[in-house]
Amino acid sequence: MVTINLVILGPAGSGKSTLTANFGKWIQKELGFKVSYVNLDPGAEYLPYRPDYDIRSLVTVKEVMKREKLGPNGAIIRCMDIMMENIDKVVKKISGLKSDYRLIDTPGQMEPFTFRRIGPELVSKLSDLGSVISLFLVDSVLASSVTGLIVVELMGLVVQLRLLAPTLIILNKADLLRVSFDIEKLLTDPEYLTKALNKDMKEGLINDLMLFLGEAILQYFQASRLIKISAKECKGFEALYDLIHETFCTCGDLT
Amino acid sequence: MVTINLVILGPAGSGKSTLTANFGKWIQKELGFKVSYVNLDPGAEYLPYRPDYDIRSLVTVKEVMKREKLGPNGAIIRCMDIMMENIDKVVKKISGLKSDYRLIDTPGQMEPFTFRRIGPELVSKLSDLGSVISLFLVDSVLASSVTGLIVVELMGLVVQLRLLAPTLIILNKADLLRVSFDIEKLLTDPEYLTKALNKDMKEGLINDLMLFLGEAILQYFQASRLIKISAKECKGFEALYDLIHETFCTCGDLT
Repeated sequence: MVTINLVILGPAGSGKSTLTANFGKWIQKELGFKVSYVNLDPGAEYLPYRPDYDIRSLVTVKEVMKREKLGPNGAIIRCMDIMMENIDKVVKKISGLKSDYRLIDTPGQMEPFTFRRIGPELVSKLSDLGSVISLFLVDSVLASSVTGLIVVELMGLVVQLRLLAPTLIILNKADLLRVSFDIEKLLTDPEYLTKALNKDMKEGLINDLMLFLGEAILQYFQASRLIKISAKECKGFEALYDLIHETFCTCGDLT
Repeated sequence: MVTINLVILGPAGSGKSTLTANFGKWIQKELGFKVSYVNLDPGAEYLPYRPDYDIRSLVTVKEVMKREKLGPNGAIIRCMDIMMENIDKVVKKISGLKSDYRLIDTPGQMEPFTFRRIGPELVSKLSDLGSVISLFLVDSVLASSVTGLIVVELMGLVVQLRLLAPTLIILNKADLLRVSFDIEKLLTDPEYLTKALNKDMKEGLINDLMLFLGEAILQYFQASRLIKISAKECKGFEALYDLIHETFCTCGDLT
């Protein structure tokens, strides 16, 4: 079996490390596959899993703050650049981990990883050596309105286009999600979407834009690409695994 | 004259503070308007302007790291939440600054400000009291390919939809931008776009998606919404000012 790299991204607080730990355990226990764990967050203070490769052996935000007398923002950026300078070493370490699945946890803030060179380059190099699927994780609260859901879909697009890897959008903490609309129906039924948007929005300049985007997203995306889980409660993992597997089978040869 | 709040956002390193300083000076000197400066980055180490209100009088990332024994990521998030807890006080301070323009510099990382409650809430409260235009600043290097340009447009959309304020996309460091295509033509001529995309892209699964998005963006956006400047060299400021003024006149009454 070829190794599948799962790159887990998302805004701070979306539950990346919890998903890495619990989904990894689930894959090992329920499916019997060998899993390795990678931490790429140089600012991590505590991890709920034991990383087989840890970027903090190369660099940490705190030591950069101290050594280079930088503020936290500057130090995070500097860490990304240090990772970039050492990318071949990092890729070698990761690709040396023999397993069926590699769960790759990324920096707390998604932005410096995704918008600087390191994220796209790393994914590109891993794709040359195997299969990469990116899991874009967001807190369900961001998708608790129709406009919020559309913003999440757009963000998923941005991630996919920056990393150029198939990307699954995952709503975490879904057990806490309370919405007045049917997400699946929203992403498949244009009439339902238009109604929900009209109900959701204030009047004004944003209205037309949202309607346009909603319909555009609906035209293009399959509802199945969006999935609800609870990383903490280990819920939705079967559906997530099925989607990963399906994505791998569809895209595996193209990447 | 009503006060116009310019909220300056963008990824770390995009030049937010430099734009705040130099565009502010330019508005004062060239147009004779009164400008006030606001710093909302609790992690800022050095500012090239003297803020009339500085969030660091409320909270700093470093003191939160120390006091609450948090890592840099956790401390940045905690700062956003502290700002949110004090939002009425912060809005009062900002809206108390009497001037024609308020230049509001935002946190180094765009993500925690835009995706947590603080960014949208602050813009909403300022909009109730006056006019708000968001300036989404990116390093031109991100827009140096056709796909890159489309990602930047999508990011601008995300910002606009999160903040619900008119948003201008500004390519900074444009003096360093070397592209093999005509940006204006790309955003107005569907045939030219399709050709450029076909030339720019590798084969594979991303192809269709990019074509679709490119055409969708082209259908909806005016090229004039995207502007090239150099904040450091004070270039493009007249065009930027004109666009702000035009946006204000079009949207001023709607926000």
